[in-house]
Amino acid sequence: MYNTNPVRGTRDFLPEEMALRAYMKKTIVEVYQQHGFNEIQTPAIENIDLLLSSEGGENLKLIYKILKRGRKLKLDIENLGEGDLVDLSLRYDLTLPLSRFYAHYASQLPKPFKSMQIGDVYRAERPQKGRYRSLVQCDIDIIGDKDNMAEIELIAATAKALMALTFRNFTIRINDRRLLKKVIGYAGFDDQVIGNVCVIFDKLDKIGIKGVSEELKNKGYDVDVVNRFVTIVTKMDKMALSDFGSMGVDEKVLSSLQDVLWIIKEQSKGQYAIKFDPSLVRGMGYYTGMIYEIACDELGCSIAGGGRYNNMIGRFMKENVPAVGFSIGFERIFEILKDKGYQIPDQQKKVALLYGEENRIEIFEEADRLRAEGMLVSLIPRHKKLGKQCNRLKEQNFNYYGYWSDDAWRINALY
Amino acid sequence: MYNTNPVRGTRDFLPEEMALRAYMKKTIVEVYQQHGFNEIQTPAIENIDLLLSSEGGENLKLIYKILKRGRKLKLDIENLGEGDLVDLSLRYDLTLPLSRFYAHYASQLPKPFKSMQIGDVYRAERPQKGRYRSLVQCDIDIIGDKDNMAEIELIAATAKALMALTFRNFTIRINDRRLLKKVIGYAGFDDQVIGNVCVIFDKLDKIGIKGVSEELKNKGYDVDVVNRFVTIVTKMDKMALSDFGSMGVDEKVLSSLQDVLWIIKEQSKGQYAIKFDPSLVRGMGYYTGMIYEIACDELGCSIAGGGRYNNMIGRFMKENVPAVGFSIGFERIFEILKDKGYQIPDQQKKVALLYGEENRIEIFEEADRLRAEGMLVSLIPRHKKLGKQCNRLKEQNFNYYGYWSDDAWRINALY
Repeated sequence: MYNTNPVRGTRDFLPEEMALRAYMKKTIVEVYQQHGFNEIQTPAIENIDLLLSSEGGENLKLIYKILKRGRKLKLDIENLGEGDLVDLSLRYDLTLPLSRFYAHYASQLPKPFKSMQIGDVYRAERPQKGRYRSLVQCDIDIIGDKDNMAEIELIAATAKALMALTFRNFTIRINDRRLLKKVIGYAGFDDQVIGNVCVIFDKLDKIGIKGVSEELKNKGYDVDVVNRFVTIVTKMDKMALSDFGSMGVDEKVLSSLQDVLWIIKEQSKGQYAIKFDPSLVRGMGYYTGMIYEIACDELGCSIAGGGRYNNMIGRFMKENVPAVGFSIGFERIFEILKDKGYQIPDQQKKVALLYGEENRIEIFEEADRLRAEGMLVSLIPRHKKLGKQCNRLKEQNFNYYGYWSDDAWRINALY
Repeated sequence: MYNTNPVRGTRDFLPEEMALRAYMKKTIVEVYQQHGFNEIQTPAIENIDLLLSSEGGENLKLIYKILKRGRKLKLDIENLGEGDLVDLSLRYDLTLPLSRFYAHYASQLPKPFKSMQIGDVYRAERPQKGRYRSLVQCDIDIIGDKDNMAEIELIAATAKALMALTFRNFTIRINDRRLLKKVIGYAGFDDQVIGNVCVIFDKLDKIGIKGVSEELKNKGYDVDVVNRFVTIVTKMDKMALSDFGSMGVDEKVLSSLQDVLWIIKEQSKGQYAIKFDPSLVRGMGYYTGMIYEIACDELGCSIAGGGRYNNMIGRFMKENVPAVGFSIGFERIFEILKDKGYQIPDQQKKVALLYGEENRIEIFEEADRLRAEGMLVSLIPRHKKLGKQCNRLKEQNFNYYGYWSDDAWRINALY
């Protein structure tokens, strides 16, 4: 007898779960299409060289690698290393495949190109609650637009998608990597360590400013510099955007943030909030400009995140092309909706049409008649004990059952 | 500069292709839901032991294997073999994962269970036209019903799905593995070689009866037996179902085939044909009863296939559970529809709303107004040369463009 569990860290989806996921996907796709985004798709397998050369940070350690096949696989090499064994890998995100895709088909694509991609990505994470080894990512990106209207569109469209999935009371947090870098530099950190400081500062939500301070000191950074940084961070929350000019942040960066804050607020009509958050970092190494996240106020967790990455696509083609992306936390939202027992609206009625030895032709006509009325009709063998069968059908969420009696189909509700 | 091609044997899908694929999937899912099938999902990665132990035949040679990770990967073993290196693999079909799934969740699932699964499968095929290393499979299965109404439902529902995708003039070919075995045995082949004879006989469409005869003789089978088999096959086409009784085929097998032929014909209302085809074999080793295929008359190719597999699920749980499946050739159908320039019906109109430096708030209101009217609205930076930009928008399949002038939005058609 085999172990019938799905692979550790992955999930099977039963019909009810799958119905919710399909509804979520349909809803998100519809909203994004209304906003002019076009669905594309890339394969889940990519050449391993492509992924390993990316700025994926920690994700690179989590890549699933695929064994070479046939004669390409040579096991008798001396000092055999992983590199000798593998040629392909499973993608760990959708941004890198999109960049490859755009570089390859740029001449056939509109400028700017508004892309939507929904697909599975794979990460060899240590399994824990809410972390999966196979998960759906759900990204929109605008490629080829350096105007901050691109950021505004991504944010406005994603907020609409979340509202369509009944999310209310969420807050958009927004910052800019260029501002963040200036602040860190202003405290006294050298340019070349700013990336490393960001990685530690990103833990602020988890370990607090005290934890950040300790970790920075433990890494050997100058105590005075760390203390000055802590002082700035502590008062940052009360600072207006314009105050950051004195730390050397470019006026253009500040006014662009101001624009986005203002336009998003105006067009949101009070349905959700947006705020400048100078402590927002976001993990990925490739961001170059504005970064943003949507937090669910009630649950205090992030449900979407993204930013501008103007230097990634240039690695794949002759010219550099600006790009912005926003990714909905599909798995997080699925868990939230599932936990609160979310009911999919406007579900079609389910009918069980029971068959015996006779009427095996007529039943198809009756089934089609009911389908034409908008019902979901399943043909099911009739049991001897009809009452017991009806109880079971009710448990299976059927709304009606039908059977042949006195030369006619009788359709009854299941209460 | 990196190679930006997708992995050899896989495909990227551009927006127009993806729109067709999404429409195909939506159409198929809707029809199958109307027929009472419930979508489920299993992960694309499975434990390798599960796949290697399956009756997957040739497919087992095509499995993509995933390298062990971290400390599990030991490269200093003597006589290192593939088995030491891998623990997971990419699935090569959806039937085996479904069987594992059913065995695991049987107590939570209705009986009979009507399953639908659409997902990517992976095969390390030698790349050639129409053969892909990553492809979508689209399966329905009924688990727990030994009545031939299960076969009839699968066939009727799949025919409807194909008709919804505008397929006409197709023929369902139907046979039974038990009949096939008797015919091969009747010719004089030993029981234990019947499987091997099937594999060769399956090539009839490709190499003709002469080719089959030669290959059987080359394999060393008795010339008299092969000749007798050829004689039977040659006259089989003209034989009625009842004639097969004299070859030792069970009456129940024949009358069940007769039932299915009759009921499908009656309920099809002449929209498609069904015929008994004693030379239909179908590749997979696990079929135990009826097998069937849908052939597109014009193109002479198979666009769906399936059969009964009553002994597979029992390998994963204590009791044996009968099962039937039917799989639509999603990739084949996609190629056919794409090649004939199929237009997706009822497409929403596309509007390009152009923005400049001003009206960056009002544009969101106008966009929402147009979206509420059912349009797909994209905000796009306005170029200096509007005429040139309009030409480009037309190429990108926009139906309208809108711009701000004299204190109002002007929406014009793009001819």
